[in-house]
Amino acid sequence: MDPLYTETGVFVALEGGEGSGKSTQAPLLVEWLESLGHRVLLTREPGGTEVGKILRHIVLDNGTGELSPRTEALVYAADKAEHVDKVVLPALAEGAIVITDRYVDSALAYQGAGRSLDMAELEHVARWATSSLRPNLTIVLDIDPAIGHVRFEGADRIESEPLEFHERVREHFLELAAADPGHYVVIAGDGTPEEIHAEIRTAVEPWLGQAHP
Amino acid sequence: MDPLYTETGVFVALEGGEGSGKSTQAPLLVEWLESLGHRVLLTREPGGTEVGKILRHIVLDNGTGELSPRTEALVYAADKAEHVDKVVLPALAEGAIVITDRYVDSALAYQGAGRSLDMAELEHVARWATSSLRPNLTIVLDIDPAIGHVRFEGADRIESEPLEFHERVREHFLELAAADPGHYVVIAGDGTPEEIHAEIRTAVEPWLGQAHP
Repeated sequence: MDPLYTETGVFVALEGGEGSGKSTQAPLLVEWLESLGHRVLLTREPGGTEVGKILRHIVLDNGTGELSPRTEALVYAADKAEHVDKVVLPALAEGAIVITDRYVDSALAYQGAGRSLDMAELEHVARWATSSLRPNLTIVLDIDPAIGHVRFEGADRIESEPLEFHERVREHFLELAAADPGHYVVIAGDGTPEEIHAEIRTAVEPWLGQAHP
Repeated sequence: MDPLYTETGVFVALEGGEGSGKSTQAPLLVEWLESLGHRVLLTREPGGTEVGKILRHIVLDNGTGELSPRTEALVYAADKAEHVDKVVLPALAEGAIVITDRYVDSALAYQGAGRSLDMAELEHVARWATSSLRPNLTIVLDIDPAIGHVRFEGADRIESEPLEFHERVREHFLELAAADPGHYVVIAGDGTPEEIHAEIRTAVEPWLGQAHP
């Protein structure tokens, strides 16, 4: 399936490991874009739809127990299908800037690099789920998992994975970014929130015009 | 992905439309096989695992609202992955006869023939979910939807579909059976329960020996 890029609106994905600062940066980005007069939708995977909230609970709840790796990948894919069809594509069609906290790359990094499923098959399923829609820009907030990955009481199923898992995830994000520099930017996640926000502005600004191939 | 057939145990799928009599016939088949001294596991899709019960609720509950067709297909696929890995394969490995009430063919018939998703893609996802494991024998209980498909208060999301949907589903089951006569038998679902059970016995008997290619 050839990559599909939206012709209306702008689609931006925030990617990165645990503790990389996505949840701090996302609202700062929204605030800035809204101050420029753009219509912005902030959403996320998993859990960006009503059904997605149930699916998110299945994959992240410790009470679920050990899922088959294929089950996990398919639950994430179902969440994506609903998210793209019901939230992302309609907002883009209306010309909005859609910012998603995690997208296909997280599926590839976490289920593929992390859990050793066949990467080609995993990507095939994730692309089918999302009709091959790709972000115009993916921002990878990069942080050493030894710093970002703080274990704490109440960690979910993904957060509870060992450090080596998170190192493979990080590596995978960086490989994806290196393979498509026209649609990716990697920003070091160990700056201050203000420094990181400034870099994100610089990365997003070129996409705010009308035309964005 | 080449079809995979179990080398231990026997894997039997019961397929058919609404009202075809699967839920009447399944326990009769189990009872007969157990009376012959076989170890038997009766299971079903969707909902044959703990996670599957949640997934089943998502796809069948009217309260879910309209799902994207891809979401529906992927939720069913996730249910299958968990079911095959956690229930079907372990029981077959121990030499049991596993009887499943619905399997991949229901996904193909209902999501493909019914909802007009691309059949090749749909099959690819369902085969990936199930590691290409195929039943040794699939029994299609065939009934005219105009007879089998009784509308009633409390019908679930699938049962509430129009008659034409169920006609396409029936057609699809018959096509799958016609394409692989070595692993399928079609039994008319409009006989008495005793007549149908006798035909099922005749179909299953040849598979009860040790070797079954």
